[in-house]
Amino acid sequence: MAGSVRRDPIRRITVIVAEERVRRPGGWSLPDEPLELSPCPFCPGNERLTPPEVLGFRPAGHKNDPNWSVRVVPNQLPALRVEGTLEREAVGFYDHTSAVGAHEVIVESPAHVRTLDELGPAPITAVAEAWQERLVDLQRDFRLRYPAIFQNVGRAAGAQLLHAHSQLIALPFVPPEVLGELAAFRAHHDAHERCLQCDLLRQEAAAVERVVFENSAFVVLAPYASRVPFELWIVPRRCEARFERMEPRERTAYGEAVFAALRKVNGALGKPALRLVLRTAPFGPPAALPYHFRLELLPVLAPVGGFELGTGVVVNPIAPEAAAEILRDMPVGT
Amino acid sequence: MAGSVRRDPIRRITVIVAEERVRRPGGWSLPDEPLELSPCPFCPGNERLTPPEVLGFRPAGHKNDPNWSVRVVPNQLPALRVEGTLEREAVGFYDHTSAVGAHEVIVESPAHVRTLDELGPAPITAVAEAWQERLVDLQRDFRLRYPAIFQNVGRAAGAQLLHAHSQLIALPFVPPEVLGELAAFRAHHDAHERCLQCDLLRQEAAAVERVVFENSAFVVLAPYASRVPFELWIVPRRCEARFERMEPRERTAYGEAVFAALRKVNGALGKPALRLVLRTAPFGPPAALPYHFRLELLPVLAPVGGFELGTGVVVNPIAPEAAAEILRDMPVGT
Repeated sequence: MAGSVRRDPIRRITVIVAEERVRRPGGWSLPDEPLELSPCPFCPGNERLTPPEVLGFRPAGHKNDPNWSVRVVPNQLPALRVEGTLEREAVGFYDHTSAVGAHEVIVESPAHVRTLDELGPAPITAVAEAWQERLVDLQRDFRLRYPAIFQNVGRAAGAQLLHAHSQLIALPFVPPEVLGELAAFRAHHDAHERCLQCDLLRQEAAAVERVVFENSAFVVLAPYASRVPFELWIVPRRCEARFERMEPRERTAYGEAVFAALRKVNGALGKPALRLVLRTAPFGPPAALPYHFRLELLPVLAPVGGFELGTGVVVNPIAPEAAAEILRDMPVGT
Repeated sequence: MAGSVRRDPIRRITVIVAEERVRRPGGWSLPDEPLELSPCPFCPGNERLTPPEVLGFRPAGHKNDPNWSVRVVPNQLPALRVEGTLEREAVGFYDHTSAVGAHEVIVESPAHVRTLDELGPAPITAVAEAWQERLVDLQRDFRLRYPAIFQNVGRAAGAQLLHAHSQLIALPFVPPEVLGELAAFRAHHDAHERCLQCDLLRQEAAAVERVVFENSAFVVLAPYASRVPFELWIVPRRCEARFERMEPRERTAYGEAVFAALRKVNGALGKPALRLVLRTAPFGPPAALPYHFRLELLPVLAPVGGFELGTGVVVNPIAPEAAAEILRDMPVGT
């Protein structure tokens, strides 16, 4: 039963059982120290320590040469595997799906840094371009339905390595939480012929108190119902459902906005563990889908306790207006 | 805007903004050590360090005397407050509710222990009786709709103190996750005239592989879609929606089952941080409600990363069948 996607009829949460991942360094414990493998498998010159790359940005040269700026490789201990056919079956009252999918690692820079704001906005723009290329490529596989792109920074966020890297897990289903958002956007569009996120952006721009940073194409804000302290959303001004359709001019502004968000959070909170999460439209025909992509930045400042697990309700000890005020005042520098 | 319950129309998660709680010892950091306040406010003789008790089990004597076996006090830094009227309003596109509710702490034993399995099954049974009394009392307040009872053990689970204590937060709404479960039970009952949990219990008893412990009135099992490694459910054999209607004979068996579950998890995993979560029916008329209460035991063995936050999907590195085998073989002792 290893390598399965499971759902029970009571809680209806989706669980990927990926037993291979037990072999990760660290095992069951929650170590306090960042794990520093030596040599670092993500540093230039150590390309042989990762599986062969699926994408590399480099001025010239061959695949797996060391002169890259961004590099994408398959995850060595994937949560889902590309091989195999997608099978869905009932196990008594339970739902079972074979764990087919893709799990890739985006090595974000040849420099051995924790987050890219140590380097400037341009490398963040380059990583966004790599994400876009992988999204365009992976949606050709008709078994894949939703691309989860995320980054864990620090052990408290689940990172196994310090060297800045993001991950892409392409799922064989659209997660229920994403379906819920799509339904909300659809209902709002059916009722008003407007985008829900565009309406919220206008409301936030008028209220001002939760806006942290703005530029020509992006707004950084603390969401009204922040689920962790100092949560930030990086939202494009132009209504666009799909991250991969962000234009080059917008991508530059995206790099600047994410750079500002990371600098402010790292400055205000002393480089906390954090997660970056992309919410973009599921794979499918590029027809008009009422959705509006965003990047979420979620620091790790409190553990997940029994109240949250038992109810799904979150207790946040700081109002987003207060968090936004602290972050707005924090200089970005260069 | 402090002290509010918030929901946005995109994610529709519910967030309680409780700014008073910033003043908790520890502040923003995630300390590694269990915090040991000296003197311990939960030890006998230090009753003056907590607010006056709302319930105390003692053979004789007065309220707030030291000769108690279980003691319930209001939380000093509550997430919700009993005072005030319940107001629901729209803030533009957002939903806002005043943070009215109850937040109580159940001091589970006069002994300064981490979890009650250090003492035996009887104190667990006594705590269950205290939970039942508080549930019966709190549902008289018509503003309160759902009682969240939970226990955080260890700093990685959010515990602020070592001395064993559980918490009860009575919410002015039924959380969306609970509504989802109730809908699943209702749909199953409408279709089959049977309880969903009873059907699953029969299936699990036949399959055997996920059953960890059984006695006359309770079954301890690793759920098919375990959302954390080594998750356990403690489920009554008799179909009962409400924890407070558990009978004295069942309560004794409950104490034995929870004792066995804690001993096995603490023995197999070296006293991990963990959460206990009660899922019981919302407050309301005692009419036939298709539901079946349970206690969940959720160890903390991995942090919550970006994939989980971005999708709601969980990656579990051990199959529940493998976890159940390990826990089944672990002796309970006495």
